[in-house]
Amino acid sequence: MGMIGGGPGSFIGPIHRIAAELDREIELVAGCFSSDAARSSEAGTSYRIDGTRAYPTLDAMFAAEKARDDGIDFVAIVSPNHHHLPAAKAALAAGFPVISDKPATATLAQAHELSACVRAAGLPYALTHTYSGYPLVREARARIAAGALGTIRKLVVEYPQGWLAGEAIGKQAEWRTDPARSGPGGCIGDIGTHAFQLAEFVTGLKVVELFADLAAVVPGRQVDDDCTVLLRYDNGARGVLLASQIEVGEMNGLRIRVYGDKGGLLWRQEAPNTLTIHSLDGRTEIVHAGGSQLGPDAASRTRTPTGHPEGYLEAFANIYRDFAAVLRGEPAPLLPGIDDALRGMTFIDTAVRASQERSGWVRLTV
Amino acid sequence: MGMIGGGPGSFIGPIHRIAAELDREIELVAGCFSSDAARSSEAGTSYRIDGTRAYPTLDAMFAAEKARDDGIDFVAIVSPNHHHLPAAKAALAAGFPVISDKPATATLAQAHELSACVRAAGLPYALTHTYSGYPLVREARARIAAGALGTIRKLVVEYPQGWLAGEAIGKQAEWRTDPARSGPGGCIGDIGTHAFQLAEFVTGLKVVELFADLAAVVPGRQVDDDCTVLLRYDNGARGVLLASQIEVGEMNGLRIRVYGDKGGLLWRQEAPNTLTIHSLDGRTEIVHAGGSQLGPDAASRTRTPTGHPEGYLEAFANIYRDFAAVLRGEPAPLLPGIDDALRGMTFIDTAVRASQERSGWVRLTV
Amino acid sequence: MGMIGGGPGSFIGPIHRIAAELDREIELVAGCFSSDAARSSEAGTSYRIDGTRAYPTLDAMFAAEKARDDGIDFVAIVSPNHHHLPAAKAALAAGFPVISDKPATATLAQAHELSACVRAAGLPYALTHTYSGYPLVREARARIAAGALGTIRKLVVEYPQGWLAGEAIGKQAEWRTDPARSGPGGCIGDIGTHAFQLAEFVTGLKVVELFADLAAVVPGRQVDDDCTVLLRYDNGARGVLLASQIEVGEMNGLRIRVYGDKGGLLWRQEAPNTLTIHSLDGRTEIVHAGGSQLGPDAASRTRTPTGHPEGYLEAFANIYRDFAAVLRGEPAPLLPGIDDALRGMTFIDTAVRASQERSGWVRLTV
Amino acid sequence: MGMIGGGPGSFIGPIHRIAAELDREIELVAGCFSSDAARSSEAGTSYRIDGTRAYPTLDAMFAAEKARDDGIDFVAIVSPNHHHLPAAKAALAAGFPVISDKPATATLAQAHELSACVRAAGLPYALTHTYSGYPLVREARARIAAGALGTIRKLVVEYPQGWLAGEAIGKQAEWRTDPARSGPGGCIGDIGTHAFQLAEFVTGLKVVELFADLAAVVPGRQVDDDCTVLLRYDNGARGVLLASQIEVGEMNGLRIRVYGDKGGLLWRQEAPNTLTIHSLDGRTEIVHAGGSQLGPDAASRTRTPTGHPEGYLEAFANIYRDFAAVLRGEPAPLLPGIDDALRGMTFIDTAVRASQERSGWVRLTV
Repeated sequence: MGMIGGGPGSFIGPIHRIAAELDREIELVAGCFSSDAARSSEAGTSYRIDGTRAYPTLDAMFAAEKARDDGIDFVAIVSPNHHHLPAAKAALAAGFPVISDKPATATLAQAHELSACVRAAGLPYALTHTYSGYPLVREARARIAAGALGTIRKLVVEYPQGWLAGEAIGKQAEWRTDPARSGPGGCIGDIGTHAFQLAEFVTGLKVVELFADLAAVVPGRQVDDDCTVLLRYDNGARGVLLASQIEVGEMNGLRIRVYGDKGGLLWRQEAPNTLTIHSLDGRTEIVHAGGSQLGPDAASRTRTPTGHPEGYLEAFANIYRDFAAVLRGEPAPLLPGIDDALRGMTFIDTAVRASQERSGWVRLTV
Repeated sequence: MGMIGGGPGSFIGPIHRIAAELDREIELVAGCFSSDAARSSEAGTSYRIDGTRAYPTLDAMFAAEKARDDGIDFVAIVSPNHHHLPAAKAALAAGFPVISDKPATATLAQAHELSACVRAAGLPYALTHTYSGYPLVREARARIAAGALGTIRKLVVEYPQGWLAGEAIGKQAEWRTDPARSGPGGCIGDIGTHAFQLAEFVTGLKVVELFADLAAVVPGRQVDDDCTVLLRYDNGARGVLLASQIEVGEMNGLRIRVYGDKGGLLWRQEAPNTLTIHSLDGRTEIVHAGGSQLGPDAASRTRTPTGHPEGYLEAFANIYRDFAAVLRGEPAPLLPGIDDALRGMTFIDTAVRASQERSGWVRLTV
Repeated sequence: MGMIGGGPGSFIGPIHRIAAELDREIELVAGCFSSDAARSSEAGTSYRIDGTRAYPTLDAMFAAEKARDDGIDFVAIVSPNHHHLPAAKAALAAGFPVISDKPATATLAQAHELSACVRAAGLPYALTHTYSGYPLVREARARIAAGALGTIRKLVVEYPQGWLAGEAIGKQAEWRTDPARSGPGGCIGDIGTHAFQLAEFVTGLKVVELFADLAAVVPGRQVDDDCTVLLRYDNGARGVLLASQIEVGEMNGLRIRVYGDKGGLLWRQEAPNTLTIHSLDGRTEIVHAGGSQLGPDAASRTRTPTGHPEGYLEAFANIYRDFAAVLRGEPAPLLPGIDDALRGMTFIDTAVRASQERSGWVRLTV
Repeated sequence: MGMIGGGPGSFIGPIHRIAAELDREIELVAGCFSSDAARSSEAGTSYRIDGTRAYPTLDAMFAAEKARDDGIDFVAIVSPNHHHLPAAKAALAAGFPVISDKPATATLAQAHELSACVRAAGLPYALTHTYSGYPLVREARARIAAGALGTIRKLVVEYPQGWLAGEAIGKQAEWRTDPARSGPGGCIGDIGTHAFQLAEFVTGLKVVELFADLAAVVPGRQVDDDCTVLLRYDNGARGVLLASQIEVGEMNGLRIRVYGDKGGLLWRQEAPNTLTIHSLDGRTEIVHAGGSQLGPDAASRTRTPTGHPEGYLEAFANIYRDFAAVLRGEPAPLLPGIDDALRGMTFIDTAVRASQERSGWVRLTV
């Protein structure tokens, strides 16, 4: 695997490296970690790769790696949002499959362009919606698909964070609050899109209409940092999506609750190894990661026995494991792909516009 | 104290009796528990009061009790919503102070009429917003008032229940889902108004504008059973209010989270003896009921040492304790009164109309 | 009901008053709250009883109350331990049933004397082991009796507190750390005996042998404040009992875990409204107070719907409800009586001696 | 790194592989995964190593690897206990540093022999006490060392599991319950030694005396499966160590509570990303992994921001990170080494004997 982005100071680059390598199906061997040659080289050293394979430009990486017998098989894009489209286009043009951090691009127009490129190239493309890699998220999906909750009527998906409650200081905060780099969506693109994807992933439902109230709460902020979105799904179910980056004390509190006419369930990212399931008769069951109650998909996604906590890195690695399967030509139906990418960007774009225009309920059309 | 309503099968009647008497400042001695004389008498026996003081009509109760030296000093109204106005009017006309279950009346028009009666009578009137009686709710209010969170920017108040996810069976469910008895609001009136009051109580802010999406989810239901309301407060802060009675597995999950520019806090009714406070520097503090960290108001509202759980009945008793103080002529500034009653009915009415008309954001004007 | 003890500064007196009256089957109408007439009178005022019925001596109370048509039916003893025997003897001799705070007496010899008096008097005697009044403790007992855990093999019962980690300051701390008033057991008598009773109550097993390590950790303390006791039950099961009053930060953390060959369960006093049950196949079920999964005994001991927390006072009231039934001549098989009183004192005495003598495992013989 | 053991069906082999490689300082490149050549080869394939480097014997591995320029630098021993000593001796004799799963050996005599070998070889030796690798365990140690709790008086360390409550079925269960392979200690050696090490690690205290009650609860079991050990530390503090493998429903519930004269703390392995700290004034603080309140050691051991759960594999990787530092010649004072190995075996041996002989309190002498 070759990495694009992930230079010095990157949060998500080292995370992708660990996740990709966890199951030893993938190895990071090259990268264009920065457009600054010295910084790219510095990053290569920190990742412990062969010094000659830390490239200053995409062109250099693609040319050199194609010439090697042991050259890279695909690229992982981990740079800020505005780099996603050019990086992905270049990689696809050079014949490399792409796995990309979310959101897919900075703007919806870019996403459409990317989608066309992916289809034209006929190469694998995946989006790292990490949270859908958690074993108990898979279990929740499987149980709902099997009818455990009956007909879904209502869901609440929340993604509270507090780290942008003050001034945006530091590399991570700066680009995320700069519309030139993040795109028009701030919080809605950074974490709202995770919540949107998670809810559709778990329930199998699709959003058809939404109402959005996005705010830039911190004085001077140029993108939204607090989002409330009401959702209507294709079966008529109602959804509420809350995402915020100004809720002091919240860390990475992604949480989803789904209610049907026969039961309800709850999963929390910060305590990801239990899933709570309620049934209409008043019973509450706790499902444990690694436990004997799991279906095959969730069971195959745990690496330790029950009671040995797995977390974010392991969930992320499950996404990469699916991508490795795709590269081998095997099916990985739960891996988010270009349709999810386009869908996520449509959600961001629709929510931003609906909020700005105070336009009430609007259709979400992909 | 005399009770109006609370006959056989009542949930809230016995609760009021226990709460009123817990601190031994008040004693239930009479009641018009039902308009059916036999049922009123049966209830009187169950409450262990003097058999002659279980009356079949309000007129009978008021006449007889006024004639006694040890007659009642006030009435508690615990009947379904549509009885609230006539009962309160009659009591006030007879010279009795009133403490009433919420919401104040079935309709906003009735609330205005009630408000006029209260003002004309010049007698105490209180509304049992139970949850504002919890010691740690008082502590949350005190800390926010003292600036612990800085300027409030955002709050999320949720009140999930699941008991009406199926058919409405039984006395409690039936009247609550019948607009003739509950008024136009279902869930929004039954529990949404608690959430609305709690958020204003804790923060000291007032809602000035709202957007509402109320649904009757269960087939055939005539009132809302699932509510999402977006709130804008008078200082510009945003609020999200979620209330539902169809979320299977939820019991009585009232919860509030408040975020300012310096901190955040969380309180949950189902675990009411802890309050979580986050500060901007990343610290999290747990405040315990009965503990030494409490301010005077919360400290005086606990009856047991820390670690000895107090709950719903004790919180309810704190409301009655305040009412007893008012009857003695002492101040009880935190006791919900006629203004809160009117405010709550305005909230219900505004939300119901806004949702029916899909009218977008509307002003809340009391 | 007449109260003995519970004068100004008492913690447990007001608790007994609330608990006794909660279900309105019992009313506090008289008391000998202190041997100081002025203080007894002051307490009577605080309890809002008729001023003439706050007596300075037991003799005065018994004489006056027997002469009244509406005199007391029984007494509640809530004074420090060393007063228990003389108070109970006098009450029984005067023909009054007794309900007493635990432990039954200050010493084992006194307990034997008390037992003889109770048997001679032929009057009801009960001991307020509050925690066995919690609905979910009753449910745990019922489920174990029904075989839900199979054969019990192991239990761990813990009672951590921290309030005596420093100097013993204040009335409550002073008498509890004074062997002349508390008896030879400190922590083991104050809370260890609760843990001992709870474990036998829940499992239906009886301790036959124990090993004890009791310590007076705080410098200068004259009684134990930290206790570890290993237990062997009559079916061969092992138990571990931990009780401490020097564990800083612990509040009233009574907790019991029971494991059989088919399942395990957990209950915690500080979160008393859930009971966790594990089965051998890896499933975990959460049982909720007030919920539909409860058996008849637990269901009849809750006063509110599920999700409305009940706590310590309500559990205490359940003990009084059983006592009221006994006074009416009805059976209350789960109410702790004189046998439990004697058993608890034997436990304290055996543990204190075994620890002092470092005598290894010793038989517990009642 | 070369692996010894970890063949098909191994639980801990793949765990060591992931942990060792997580930070990319170490790579698994060779192994003698089984004494059966075909099985060793099969395992090599599953680990994705070069097929020629899956050896059937230790001698073959050591000879071949020493001959390679890119040969292994050390070995990780992950086989059952009775293989530990011969494997470690052979590796040390061949000049390879050793990192070994715990306990160090099957018997205390073997541990002494191993200790002599390590000292004679002058090579690094480490023991994977995984739990001391958790960031918040490091934080707990640092805070206690800095005096946050004052003088330690009491600790309770518990390690409940339930997976051996029934028949011992499967490779993992079989060898652990066979004294010929596990050594004389069952549960006490498998998990009791972790608890023992954790308590000394966190507090900096050393056990000087113990009382042990070990039981083989499951009919027919030949080693202990349920352990209670009372501990006395070198400063006079008391400890209670509970370890069990028959507590149905318990997963991997390692937990430690430490109490001093100024504060107390709690850490739980199943929720490893928070640490609770109580102070004498009644305040409770929650410390979050990845948060700003961490000291340098804990902060450097987290790989993700606060709220992104890390777990067992990451803690394990922290042990390997320390070992990599030692191989580079850097200090890693918190890495368990040969002294800890010997100490742990002494604990097992002393507890087993003390329990068998019912000998009361015995000195623990290393």
